[in-house]
Amino acid sequence: MLRAMKTHYQYLVIGGGSGGVASARRAASYGASALVIESKAMGGTCVNVGCVPKKVMWYASDISQKIQIARDYGFPKVDPAFAKTFDWPTYKTKRDAYVKKLNGIYERNMTKEKVDYVYGLASFTKDGKVSVVDKEDPSKVSTYTADNILVATGGKAVLPTKIPGWELGMNSDGLFDLKERPKRVMMVGSGFISVEFSGFFHLLGSETHTVIRKQHVLTKFDEIIQNTITDYYVKEGVNIHKGTSVAKVEKLEDGSKKVTLENGETVVVDALFWCIGRNSLIDMHPENIGLNLDSKGRIVVDGYQRTNVPNVYSLGDVVGHLQLTPVAIATGRKLANRLFGPEKFKTQKMDFTNVPTAVFSHPEVGAIGLTEKQAKEKYGEENIKIYTSRFNAMAYAMTEHKSPTAYKLVCLKPENEKIIGMHIVGDGSSEIMQGFGVAIKMGATKADFDSCVAIHPTSAEELVTMK
Amino acid sequence: MLRAMKTHYQYLVIGGGSGGVASARRAASYGASALVIESKAMGGTCVNVGCVPKKVMWYASDISQKIQIARDYGFPKVDPAFAKTFDWPTYKTKRDAYVKKLNGIYERNMTKEKVDYVYGLASFTKDGKVSVVDKEDPSKVSTYTADNILVATGGKAVLPTKIPGWELGMNSDGLFDLKERPKRVMMVGSGFISVEFSGFFHLLGSETHTVIRKQHVLTKFDEIIQNTITDYYVKEGVNIHKGTSVAKVEKLEDGSKKVTLENGETVVVDALFWCIGRNSLIDMHPENIGLNLDSKGRIVVDGYQRTNVPNVYSLGDVVGHLQLTPVAIATGRKLANRLFGPEKFKTQKMDFTNVPTAVFSHPEVGAIGLTEKQAKEKYGEENIKIYTSRFNAMAYAMTEHKSPTAYKLVCLKPENEKIIGMHIVGDGSSEIMQGFGVAIKMGATKADFDSCVAIHPTSAEELVTMK
Repeated sequence: MLRAMKTHYQYLVIGGGSGGVASARRAASYGASALVIESKAMGGTCVNVGCVPKKVMWYASDISQKIQIARDYGFPKVDPAFAKTFDWPTYKTKRDAYVKKLNGIYERNMTKEKVDYVYGLASFTKDGKVSVVDKEDPSKVSTYTADNILVATGGKAVLPTKIPGWELGMNSDGLFDLKERPKRVMMVGSGFISVEFSGFFHLLGSETHTVIRKQHVLTKFDEIIQNTITDYYVKEGVNIHKGTSVAKVEKLEDGSKKVTLENGETVVVDALFWCIGRNSLIDMHPENIGLNLDSKGRIVVDGYQRTNVPNVYSLGDVVGHLQLTPVAIATGRKLANRLFGPEKFKTQKMDFTNVPTAVFSHPEVGAIGLTEKQAKEKYGEENIKIYTSRFNAMAYAMTEHKSPTAYKLVCLKPENEKIIGMHIVGDGSSEIMQGFGVAIKMGATKADFDSCVAIHPTSAEELVTMK
Repeated sequence: MLRAMKTHYQYLVIGGGSGGVASARRAASYGASALVIESKAMGGTCVNVGCVPKKVMWYASDISQKIQIARDYGFPKVDPAFAKTFDWPTYKTKRDAYVKKLNGIYERNMTKEKVDYVYGLASFTKDGKVSVVDKEDPSKVSTYTADNILVATGGKAVLPTKIPGWELGMNSDGLFDLKERPKRVMMVGSGFISVEFSGFFHLLGSETHTVIRKQHVLTKFDEIIQNTITDYYVKEGVNIHKGTSVAKVEKLEDGSKKVTLENGETVVVDALFWCIGRNSLIDMHPENIGLNLDSKGRIVVDGYQRTNVPNVYSLGDVVGHLQLTPVAIATGRKLANRLFGPEKFKTQKMDFTNVPTAVFSHPEVGAIGLTEKQAKEKYGEENIKIYTSRFNAMAYAMTEHKSPTAYKLVCLKPENEKIIGMHIVGDGSSEIMQGFGVAIKMGATKADFDSCVAIHPTSAEELVTMK
């Protein structure tokens, strides 16, 4: 599909992901002519192989968990074993259809708002133009010029190309291609993708292995999150292989993969996922315009998303700071406000502090601000007050099987116990975190939390009654 | 059980509910001698016939709803009809055991914190003492004196004693006595108790009737809540009889009840609940000390919970303002702080503004501040800006059966769109509301909401991205 009507635009965006599309739409809302160039599918990582389809998987594993406790809740006909009857192929078809529908919504929104878009691989030419190799007919190459160019190409998974047999594993995109549920599956890595996938597969009935270099998963999060999730996953029967990594992978005759760990263990699995990090996706020939990358291959920008090349901007996963869809969207809109909007936005820029995030593990994780460790390092232990609470949510009062809840507030003592970090594990944490995120961004103190009356009975009320 | 060691106390509390016990414990923490007198079971309405057992019922109906969508989520063995196999008797046994456990925790907490307690019916004597008729042996009467007395006896359901056959119906406490699930059930009233019960029974497989005088349920809430819940309940098959009320009730030979409505309709049910309001529970002979009650029989207090009688205080449902457990707890603690705590608390009093609340309907409701109508009346329509969003939560992207989400923000335009009301319907609303409650209590504006980055994909993120 080639919808470009012009060859020169006021705003040319390379990458039709969340950040690029949001920025182009905002620019168009100010009357700027805008073009989005996407090489794969509209919506980028989030819609196609990220937030959206993974949350759809999470809903299924969440239902699986509910099936497992339904008997305890008085429904004798619901056998806990039903949780393992998950019909992967049918669900995949529905999930793919949903993603396709969202791709269409992205396209229609752009059409409606007069943003042009083309599908193809974009590259900078040496004279500062952008050439696009058509997605469907690579013999067709178009060239565009623009007053302002935004590079929002996103990221890609790191693959451990030094491990023998690494190509027998997939990156996280592969989850969404799987046509059947793997009977046995391994995730390598301790980050949120590994943890989320491990949760899905375990609850959907796969024998699940998770290989981590250290002793805990989610090592970038506060220790209360690391400990609670790691311990609970182990208790639930996720096979967490701690303090090791993969030495080699071999293909067996039946197509399965034999994974040898550095500690000597061997595990045979049907699917293997490398979840060891993400890099910037730099395939637009930045060298042709002399675009600066850092040592990790990320595009370097200043606080206003400016690269070293005049009128070339970048944001989102390709610059690598906070790889989150809503961050890319907010950054993209702010940039467009500044470039094309009214005078009052001329100094607008994105604030990357106190951004709330969630992990769709089972149970969920929510986090904002500094971890306890970061806070103590930054302000000194004597200036930090920690509030912690661990409890069984009322949802598990009736059940034999329990899922943990653990909350932590990190407060700065000399500033009236200003809340500089909040780290929560437990059902609903992703939803709970949003409103507290607003309060913390506003500079909430412990007294502000406590002055709001509790909503009873909830889990969240614990956060305004901690002692 | 009679644990009173003394006959004179610094703090005597009539009523072992949430407010009374919290206040007594706080007083004891300052070293005051404290006695709690409870006529039934420790924990009051909340623990025994309110928040706790009803939320336990809500969890069961929530699981029922999940069973109904499990097939859509790829679990072919879970027949939606299983939702109707709810085993009421077994669940009741477990629920009762849980409540009993909480009663025990209340007792143990008081023992641990050196709060004495006795079980019996308390009355004021004409000379300002408090006499207690022992719960187990009514021939035993003890008399106590105190420096300060708190009346926290709570509320009781209103019964429509003018309707012929009214005694064939129960008040809401009756739900927790039911030994079997009624095949057909009727709730009379439009308030939150009626709506919550209707949700439980409908999802647990009872034929459910709800009789309301007007056209909507939850008439004290914002219209977005009234409309969304009423329409959805009707769509789901709850039989809402609008614009009418009960004319008479007759008992049929098989024990069922024939209810004739004022519009002429007749409905036969197995259980009938009067959910038409709650009054103050005034059984402590207030006239003996000349305690002022208002025209509705509520104890009159000032901002410091003082009654007209020196050293007699009151709070919680018996004073009738915001009948919520956490409000009673917070008020009770603040009163004890003021009476027995350090100097800094000498002017402390409860702030009853911007108290967040939830209704455990299906889906849940959350609310804080002014409704749109209240705001426009108070500030003038031209000074109010409304933001509204209705959407299908992602949880229902995969399901044929949808549950609605509807959010509204009420903002005061001249004050930078300060948020003076938030009204939400949708899964997780009770949990979502808590953090936003903190922010709104802090004085959040629309810009404060928008400056917090969204957490994707959640429902709550919609609240920080409304246009």
